[in-house]
Amino acid sequence: MNHERKPTSALRIDGKRLAARLKELAAIGAIDGGGCCRLALTDDDRRGRDLVVGWMKQLGLEVSIDPIGNVFGLRAGSDPNAAPVMTGSHIDTVRTGGKYDGNLGVLGGLEMIATLNDAGLATRHPLVLAFFTDEEGARFAPDMLGSLVHVGGLPLADALATVSIDGKVLGEELARIGYAGAAPLGEPAAHAYVELHIEQGPVLDIEGVTIGAVADLQGISWQEIEIVGQSNHAGTTPMRLRHDAGYCAGAIAHFLRELAREMKDNQVCTVGKIDLFPNLINVIAARATLTADLRNTDETLLLEAEARLAAFLLQLGAEEGVTIRTRSLARFEPVTFDAGIVATIEGVATRLGYSQRRMTSGAGHDAQMLARVCPSAMIFVPSVKGISHNPAEHTAHADLEAGANVLLHTMIELASRE
Amino acid sequence: MNHERKPTSALRIDGKRLAARLKELAAIGAIDGGGCCRLALTDDDRRGRDLVVGWMKQLGLEVSIDPIGNVFGLRAGSDPNAAPVMTGSHIDTVRTGGKYDGNLGVLGGLEMIATLNDAGLATRHPLVLAFFTDEEGARFAPDMLGSLVHVGGLPLADALATVSIDGKVLGEELARIGYAGAAPLGEPAAHAYVELHIEQGPVLDIEGVTIGAVADLQGISWQEIEIVGQSNHAGTTPMRLRHDAGYCAGAIAHFLRELAREMKDNQVCTVGKIDLFPNLINVIAARATLTADLRNTDETLLLEAEARLAAFLLQLGAEEGVTIRTRSLARFEPVTFDAGIVATIEGVATRLGYSQRRMTSGAGHDAQMLARVCPSAMIFVPSVKGISHNPAEHTAHADLEAGANVLLHTMIELASRE
Repeated sequence: MNHERKPTSALRIDGKRLAARLKELAAIGAIDGGGCCRLALTDDDRRGRDLVVGWMKQLGLEVSIDPIGNVFGLRAGSDPNAAPVMTGSHIDTVRTGGKYDGNLGVLGGLEMIATLNDAGLATRHPLVLAFFTDEEGARFAPDMLGSLVHVGGLPLADALATVSIDGKVLGEELARIGYAGAAPLGEPAAHAYVELHIEQGPVLDIEGVTIGAVADLQGISWQEIEIVGQSNHAGTTPMRLRHDAGYCAGAIAHFLRELAREMKDNQVCTVGKIDLFPNLINVIAARATLTADLRNTDETLLLEAEARLAAFLLQLGAEEGVTIRTRSLARFEPVTFDAGIVATIEGVATRLGYSQRRMTSGAGHDAQMLARVCPSAMIFVPSVKGISHNPAEHTAHADLEAGANVLLHTMIELASRE
Repeated sequence: MNHERKPTSALRIDGKRLAARLKELAAIGAIDGGGCCRLALTDDDRRGRDLVVGWMKQLGLEVSIDPIGNVFGLRAGSDPNAAPVMTGSHIDTVRTGGKYDGNLGVLGGLEMIATLNDAGLATRHPLVLAFFTDEEGARFAPDMLGSLVHVGGLPLADALATVSIDGKVLGEELARIGYAGAAPLGEPAAHAYVELHIEQGPVLDIEGVTIGAVADLQGISWQEIEIVGQSNHAGTTPMRLRHDAGYCAGAIAHFLRELAREMKDNQVCTVGKIDLFPNLINVIAARATLTADLRNTDETLLLEAEARLAAFLLQLGAEEGVTIRTRSLARFEPVTFDAGIVATIEGVATRLGYSQRRMTSGAGHDAQMLARVCPSAMIFVPSVKGISHNPAEHTAHADLEAGANVLLHTMIELASRE
């Protein structure tokens, strides 16, 4: 065994080959500014799928497609009884997407397979490279749809009946592009799952750290808050007689910042949208509609944040004499990834000489669905300035390569274990 | 003397006649919902002017028109050397105006004259009833233009050259409707000025008080505040790395409420307009534009409010790492009315059995211009729910009558003095 370990640990992916594949895939559905538009189950998505499936087959993977269009490429292991270790991500994009979101995880996985093939290295567990349907949710809601169906979180029939923003039925679009497969749903069932992804946030970039070992993923609570006050003259109405929806909107934004400050690092709060009516300089606003985006990695804390916001709204409504209504727009519980895999990622990154830190994912990923059925975790690489869902999304070549190397060795480790 | 005082104090205006004139004037430029649209120097303004001038002449007033179209109706006094006591207001309206804003002061003054005529009562000082051109400023900026020119605050030539929102030159429109008069500008020079007006705010209505003795008029500071932060993902961007223009907009609205609370009654602050960009639930706002409307009756305090806002913006910009720019949109100093006339109004109201309170005007009025050249004050009557600049503007019949009675006796008192 010992004489084999040395060459394996020296194994590195081919950064140029990875970059070339990223570039070739990005040419499909390319948009101005260097980005991509490959909305799920469009013709461009089909062209992207065909390209990747072709590469999978070239690398000798056994390709299967399930009824929701998830694609799996299997590389056999040395132990016929071992369950596969899976990696993957998605290749669909938002309308103004970048080149790396999702694609890096799939093509990084492909590069991992190619590297093992080139080295003639077998793993005990089989390896599976997957790409999941409609992760972005930009054409068919909800997002992470394919992986959600894969883990049994959404009945296939419901998913197939989903209607897109352009009025098309998912099942029909899937059949139209030739990706309504016949492989049994939920298979292959993974022994473990690791996903390489760009951070889509600024932490690694700002801190100058190469690898993020993603230990958890934030739960999300989205609310729309509507305030009904009373329109009045900004000069002639004394402060004590006001029912000012505009002030209330401001007070809520201010409160949420204080709340995040008090609850510390894991709690983030955002008021990204405020609309006042009539929205005039000298008229006290009669109505305000705003949104609250609350996220936390801990469900108990997220519930606490929601409860504290609700209590504040109750108090504010009573004090200002306004009616405040809230409506939940989205609610997902936080996910804690597998501590063992996170530690493996950290160990691999350190061994390979990359700076690394443990971190939280603020965005949703297929890995959060896989985490429901098997030990899972994620590897993040920096996004320059945290820009994502934007043609300007960028990750330095060296970081793409580093991420794929960490994926390679993490997969080797996981697939070598009993 | 004593045997004459009793009948004079028993004198009352004719509420029905006042109401009938208000209705007849309101029929010109009538709009849906019971309101008026008589924008300055339009054909409807001319028809309104013609109607009021006709009434003035019927009551024996000597009508003069100055070069900016201000109209003065003089009733001679018993002392040929006494300067006239003036009352007045305006009959132009905003596009969606009510029946009473301005009109009550002019027709209440007309009713005062009619009542004196009917009683055969002479005053020592002459009386002048005026209506001033373009008080609203809704067609030609600035507002209170006619009274401003009358008191020498704006050169006539500049005023005549003003271009309207519909591209017309003020001087040409004035000539077109036949109101470019030849009377010397600034005449008649008043000994004192009193203006009856609806409150356009909710104080009297909410407190159930009939008469407001207006002791001062707020100064106004209007600013547009622009915040340039950085757009980013609401989930993946830690609070400490945010440059959130939306939060800043909220923090400013919150700060201004606190500022008004600390500075007490005389300071009012309003954020009536907020626009975020891109204004999406899950994107930290890159930019915000909002307005701050600060008013105070004391110039020193208004300057303090402005300075404290400026200091807060400086601190906020530094803390959040955003750029904050402000632009002044309007700035008027506060006006303190004549204490003697205010006391006279209070005394009259009490004597007539009306509930009264001393108060501040939150809106601008011609009286603030007249206050530059002679002792001045105002009489307010309630506006139901404080609604104004709206067809729903309403004042109860009894309150209209009460206001005109207080005007009548205030004018008698002022015009009887040495």
